[in-house]
Amino acid sequence: MTISLDALNAAPAAEFTAHLGAVFEHAPWVAEAAAARRPFATVEALFSALREAVAAAPEARRLALLTGHPELAGRAARAGRIAQASIAEQAAAGLDRLSEAEFARFEALNAAYRERFGLPFILCVRRHGRASLLRRFEARLASDPETERRSAEAEVLRIAALRLDALVTGAGALRVAGRLSTHVLDTVRGGPAMGVAVELAELVSATESVVVARAETNADGRTDAPLIAGRPVPVATYELRFGLGDHYRRAGLDLPDPPFLDLVTLRFGVAEPEGHYHVPLVASPWSYQTYRGS
Amino acid sequence: MTISLDALNAAPAAEFTAHLGAVFEHAPWVAEAAAARRPFATVEALFSALREAVAAAPEARRLALLTGHPELAGRAARAGRIAQASIAEQAAAGLDRLSEAEFARFEALNAAYRERFGLPFILCVRRHGRASLLRRFEARLASDPETERRSAEAEVLRIAALRLDALVTGAGALRVAGRLSTHVLDTVRGGPAMGVAVELAELVSATESVVVARAETNADGRTDAPLIAGRPVPVATYELRFGLGDHYRRAGLDLPDPPFLDLVTLRFGVAEPEGHYHVPLVASPWSYQTYRGS
Amino acid sequence: MTISLDALNAAPAAEFTAHLGAVFEHAPWVAEAAAARRPFATVEALFSALREAVAAAPEARRLALLTGHPELAGRAARAGRIAQASIAEQAAAGLDRLSEAEFARFEALNAAYRERFGLPFILCVRRHGRASLLRRFEARLASDPETERRSAEAEVLRIAALRLDALVTGAGALRVAGRLSTHVLDTVRGGPAMGVAVELAELVSATESVVVARAETNADGRTDAPLIAGRPVPVATYELRFGLGDHYRRAGLDLPDPPFLDLVTLRFGVAEPEGHYHVPLVASPWSYQTYRGS
Amino acid sequence: MTISLDALNAAPAAEFTAHLGAVFEHAPWVAEAAAARRPFATVEALFSALREAVAAAPEARRLALLTGHPELAGRAARAGRIAQASIAEQAAAGLDRLSEAEFARFEALNAAYRERFGLPFILCVRRHGRASLLRRFEARLASDPETERRSAEAEVLRIAALRLDALVTGAGALRVAGRLSTHVLDTVRGGPAMGVAVELAELVSATESVVVARAETNADGRTDAPLIAGRPVPVATYELRFGLGDHYRRAGLDLPDPPFLDLVTLRFGVAEPEGHYHVPLVASPWSYQTYRGS
Repeated sequence: MTISLDALNAAPAAEFTAHLGAVFEHAPWVAEAAAARRPFATVEALFSALREAVAAAPEARRLALLTGHPELAGRAARAGRIAQASIAEQAAAGLDRLSEAEFARFEALNAAYRERFGLPFILCVRRHGRASLLRRFEARLASDPETERRSAEAEVLRIAALRLDALVTGAGALRVAGRLSTHVLDTVRGGPAMGVAVELAELVSATESVVVARAETNADGRTDAPLIAGRPVPVATYELRFGLGDHYRRAGLDLPDPPFLDLVTLRFGVAEPEGHYHVPLVASPWSYQTYRGS
Repeated sequence: MTISLDALNAAPAAEFTAHLGAVFEHAPWVAEAAAARRPFATVEALFSALREAVAAAPEARRLALLTGHPELAGRAARAGRIAQASIAEQAAAGLDRLSEAEFARFEALNAAYRERFGLPFILCVRRHGRASLLRRFEARLASDPETERRSAEAEVLRIAALRLDALVTGAGALRVAGRLSTHVLDTVRGGPAMGVAVELAELVSATESVVVARAETNADGRTDAPLIAGRPVPVATYELRFGLGDHYRRAGLDLPDPPFLDLVTLRFGVAEPEGHYHVPLVASPWSYQTYRGS
Repeated sequence: MTISLDALNAAPAAEFTAHLGAVFEHAPWVAEAAAARRPFATVEALFSALREAVAAAPEARRLALLTGHPELAGRAARAGRIAQASIAEQAAAGLDRLSEAEFARFEALNAAYRERFGLPFILCVRRHGRASLLRRFEARLASDPETERRSAEAEVLRIAALRLDALVTGAGALRVAGRLSTHVLDTVRGGPAMGVAVELAELVSATESVVVARAETNADGRTDAPLIAGRPVPVATYELRFGLGDHYRRAGLDLPDPPFLDLVTLRFGVAEPEGHYHVPLVASPWSYQTYRGS
Repeated sequence: MTISLDALNAAPAAEFTAHLGAVFEHAPWVAEAAAARRPFATVEALFSALREAVAAAPEARRLALLTGHPELAGRAARAGRIAQASIAEQAAAGLDRLSEAEFARFEALNAAYRERFGLPFILCVRRHGRASLLRRFEARLASDPETERRSAEAEVLRIAALRLDALVTGAGALRVAGRLSTHVLDTVRGGPAMGVAVELAELVSATESVVVARAETNADGRTDAPLIAGRPVPVATYELRFGLGDHYRRAGLDLPDPPFLDLVTLRFGVAEPEGHYHVPLVASPWSYQTYRGS
């Protein structure tokens, strides 16, 4: 349930804290500290106040903010003993549907990480595809304690920013969302290609892919909505798939069997979850091009 | 073992027939008939003589030429009771390594075809990938007897042409081979991309692919030899895979992680086994293009 | 001076006619006839009423509508003896700045046309570049009287539509404007190219070109405003010129002297004045591409 | 008249010198010195011997090699009082057809250069287009004496290499030639575009261009011979012009009038006269691409 920034500015302190208490897991004191600094002109200013409250807290509290965080795909998550927001975030990343082998792998990584750094492994999962999540886990396990302490705190802030963005409406919104869009141009007829089936898949491993969006191009050659929007674009390798052969068959062109181009696949990586990835297809039945556009 | 056209022209008729007797399966009479028309100026002229010998034969013989052909992936093939050339051809198409389920499917198709047309199903397997072979089988099963009789004879001639081409050297060679080649251009540095790993896979089904060639680009951005040459390019859907990310990493460019382009895949279909398919990749770290070139 | 559709609907008939009387040259009777059909829900409906008033007029009036039209670059225009709107339209097309030779050519064409068809040559000049205007003149001179009569009336309506669009604001605007825009993508850095100088020239003849717009790309790689908008895009051959070499020099790339690509020119034709021509440049220092986009 | 390396190796020393005496202008002593080092296995080895003879010569002789060189477009050249080879080279660069104004400009530059450095301005004119030649002249005029002395000697060697290459045949030829070629691909039909008119022009100034080659594409989409080959590609800005609209009209496509693409122009710079510039056009009626290929 969202609340407006104006309502938050006007609410009694207790209510403010009640609304925002879960933005930092098990740490309502962050919201309490920020309540005193109202009113906020923008959501960004509110988030800054929360961030500064964390920075100003005594070391023990700051550490507790990290140690209180649930593990990724951990036993507590499995047993439902973590905060509501965490349950939803981990589920969105597919961490509630792991095979036994995958669960065991996370168990081992979690244990190794906790052993090495004395902290749970914290990552803003909504910013990562599954392959990226595991790669970061392994990379950070090889890091040093000081760097990891900073990384963990940075991730807690990223998680908090996304939660705040989902809770509060108002001016000066946080820039937590990216965008992934496409566009199909028909170079035989010199205009947008309409009615082309488009599929976006996340390549989870060398052999596994998960379709994350399906759409059809409209009269402008675009999909009615971006393929991913209103959220971070998870760091991952993606494949866009276009039914180009069907488009040209419908257009009545005489194509060989099989056609030179039929299902066209564009494989690309996303490294900036808050970035805009426009990946167009400019194509004839015998040629195509793509690029990162804007 | 190859023999020169000159030697064939000069040989006693019996020797000529011995050399070419297996070009048409179980039908040395075709070579016998052609022997009398020597000398031949070109291999093409020799092949024409063989084709005309078939055309001039009495109906019973022409029919026997078809009925005597081994089935694809049939029991006789499995038991090794077919001509040496057929064994090699079917093995090259992977028909000797079918799973039990695939073998059963061929059995059923063969039986249905023989039941419907009174002929074994004949197809020049070297001109088809596995998916294409099954599609043609199904398409021809739905055809009519007259068309099928003509198709079967045409395929016998295609098989014979490939066998003759492999046996006889000399002027005026048959045009039985196609070519599949590639070329990688680096548009950041404006020249050929050297040392790029290239892989060509045949997409056998929606989930299965078989790597048919691996190579690395040379200083001219090409592979030292075409990816497929000296034989028909099997009708199939292919995927070319390029290690573009590695190329730009080696060149010292600062790429995001994961890079926008890493493994680039180009998917295309081949419909003319005797055609030249040049499929270049013109790429920067953020854009690429391909087309059917020449 | 513009007036709103609402005001026109509410005005006394005489005032309505006064406002719209010049939409059809020397023919206030067209507006008078339409006044009786008020109110109009849209500007399009108003235009339809004007068009129907023309269609319903007696033959003599319809013919007078054509014969009363000024010639292109004619003596009357030169002497300022034509309607204010015509003066502006002809001036916008450069017809008031012809050399003596060009003026003489128009004189000859006008005379030949009037001799052949008994009408002045009528063309909606705002929809044509100078070369197109002359080509149409010559093509129509070779036409037959019946076709020409229809063409002349169609052009009168096009002229009227543009005049009406400039005079009246309100819902349901006429679709009389096209658009010409561009976009520069840098495929070395994978994003919009900012600060690129762009020039649009109309190619008047094989040797003469006239710059019609100059701009610089912004942070999104586009120009702040379309290069042509809010009016028909004149039928013509254009050349877009981009300072691509300067862009890559500013970016610090090490380019040869002279660079492979420096001033990049894209030459293209516009045939639909009311269409949208998006002509992007996707470029590295060693490659570029364009297409008609959307 | 050419001579073989073998013949030069076998000839009496005087004959050797007679043949090669003009390779270095007014300096047969260079050839004389090299004669003693025969036989040469390759033309490259012969050239090395000539270069080393220059390097080993006493300062006065080396200086005379420079001072004895004719000026570009100088009075001596005009009066025909320079070596035969120089006359031909300067004529090929168009320096014998200068307007009075251009001649005056060269006069002034020559005088300033001689005044500043005590040497004639020496440049291997066959490696430069006219605009490049003037730019180099101005750039070198701003240089310092030591650099200029080295530049002048380097240019003398380049001139000598081209003369030697034209005189002597044999193994190990000098690499003095570049290449400029093109290729037209039709992405509507997926193959080479045949019969496309191609024109190559050197852009001499902002307003002047000189056509240096005309050709038509063959069945492979290439011109029968490269547009420039067997000589250095002059440093210059070029424009390739393709009759693409005519190609698609001949192919029966329904194009607007004027077509979106009609005469397609590709403008590019050449900075390495000994390089290979392959500049293809990959095009449909609504899109095109080019790049520096190989």
